[in-house]
Amino acid sequence: MELQVAVAKVSKYAVRESGDTLEMIERPHGGLSFVLADGMHTGHGAKAVSNLVARKAISLLAEGVRDGAAARAAHDYLYTQHDGKVSAELHIVSIDLVSKTIVISRNSHCPVIVGEGCQVRVLDEPSEAIGVHRRIKPVIAELPLVSQTTVVVFTDGVLDAGVRFGESFDVAQFVEGKVCDPSFGAAALAVAVLARARELDRGRPGDDTSVLVVRVVPRAGVDAARRLALRFPIE
Amino acid sequence: MELQVAVAKVSKYAVRESGDTLEMIERPHGGLSFVLADGMHTGHGAKAVSNLVARKAISLLAEGVRDGAAARAAHDYLYTQHDGKVSAELHIVSIDLVSKTIVISRNSHCPVIVGEGCQVRVLDEPSEAIGVHRRIKPVIAELPLVSQTTVVVFTDGVLDAGVRFGESFDVAQFVEGKVCDPSFGAAALAVAVLARARELDRGRPGDDTSVLVVRVVPRAGVDAARRLALRFPIE
Repeated sequence: MELQVAVAKVSKYAVRESGDTLEMIERPHGGLSFVLADGMHTGHGAKAVSNLVARKAISLLAEGVRDGAAARAAHDYLYTQHDGKVSAELHIVSIDLVSKTIVISRNSHCPVIVGEGCQVRVLDEPSEAIGVHRRIKPVIAELPLVSQTTVVVFTDGVLDAGVRFGESFDVAQFVEGKVCDPSFGAAALAVAVLARARELDRGRPGDDTSVLVVRVVPRAGVDAARRLALRFPIE
Repeated sequence: MELQVAVAKVSKYAVRESGDTLEMIERPHGGLSFVLADGMHTGHGAKAVSNLVARKAISLLAEGVRDGAAARAAHDYLYTQHDGKVSAELHIVSIDLVSKTIVISRNSHCPVIVGEGCQVRVLDEPSEAIGVHRRIKPVIAELPLVSQTTVVVFTDGVLDAGVRFGESFDVAQFVEGKVCDPSFGAAALAVAVLARARELDRGRPGDDTSVLVVRVVPRAGVDAARRLALRFPIE
């Protein structure tokens, strides 16, 4: 099998800095964790918050702390730093090679789309943002790490795409049309979701918009190399 | 301009776990840092060491600690944890959007290749691995963040490729043949260097082999999205 992970990310139209932060870290016992944090409001303040939250979660995950505990700690830290006055949404997606599962922790009103083969389901159990109430815990789902599994995580720039224009983005339906084809890679899917959100927003994203796609596909060839590629526009 | 970063990584032939660790983190004041650590020996022990070193450096960089201080702290930490008996090589490459520079910190006997336009030079000032001597500091180079700049960092799997067979890999010359073409992206360059190393090793890497390429190129189109793609084979 082969794991593919892709992220595509833009900031709100005419705002230089995205308030979303995405970080990844290798898990000490094997595997990878991805943290996507969305700070309250937009711009520099939101970025500072999402950076603080992502950094706390990542540093704990790097030490082998389990995902649920890392999410709780990120909450406690944000709550303490800002006296319960600042919120953030937080997703942690881990590929755990010990338990052979994908672990999804949500502290967000945004659902997560899961594809299993050609079937798509939505993880949308009620879940609260971190930082504002006293005791917050994540909603956690665990999926077997098997071929043809897809996880699509996004921030509210995707969820609310087009709303200003009376339209809505049915992400589950959009993803369902694509996951069946194993040659449609994670990168293509992340770009497609972002492009559709931007289209619904008529080219001017109404909020910071980030998409994280994890896809397990059959391994192409015998190539055992791990590869990472990143593109980052500079003003 | 557009920043492209690519990593390609394989472990020593017939060894399941690579002793090299690559981590990235967003800098709190803007930009990105990449840490490449190579633990002494190979396999699980080497991985534990490189993970410890990379984690320490990344967590400090995430808090805004400057690169030289992060490298020194990673040394002190490793020295303390292992009583000066375990060494690691460490590279930190940062794209600093505040100073508008690329900062390269080396604690490694492997040189770093720098391309400026079509010209290539080698950063090979003597530099020591961390962990074993009392006071170690990194060799630091700073380049202006301008278009057509290329940085190629690698571990000793690349440096020593083919040595067992009486051959040697002139990475600078290899890179010089490619950097002139701005359409030859970071990902293609990382893959080409790794493929050449593997070829010299007759398909069986004699050591953990990692390549990190940073390239600044003219921006293609108006697309402002940040993108990340990762491929990770699973046994």
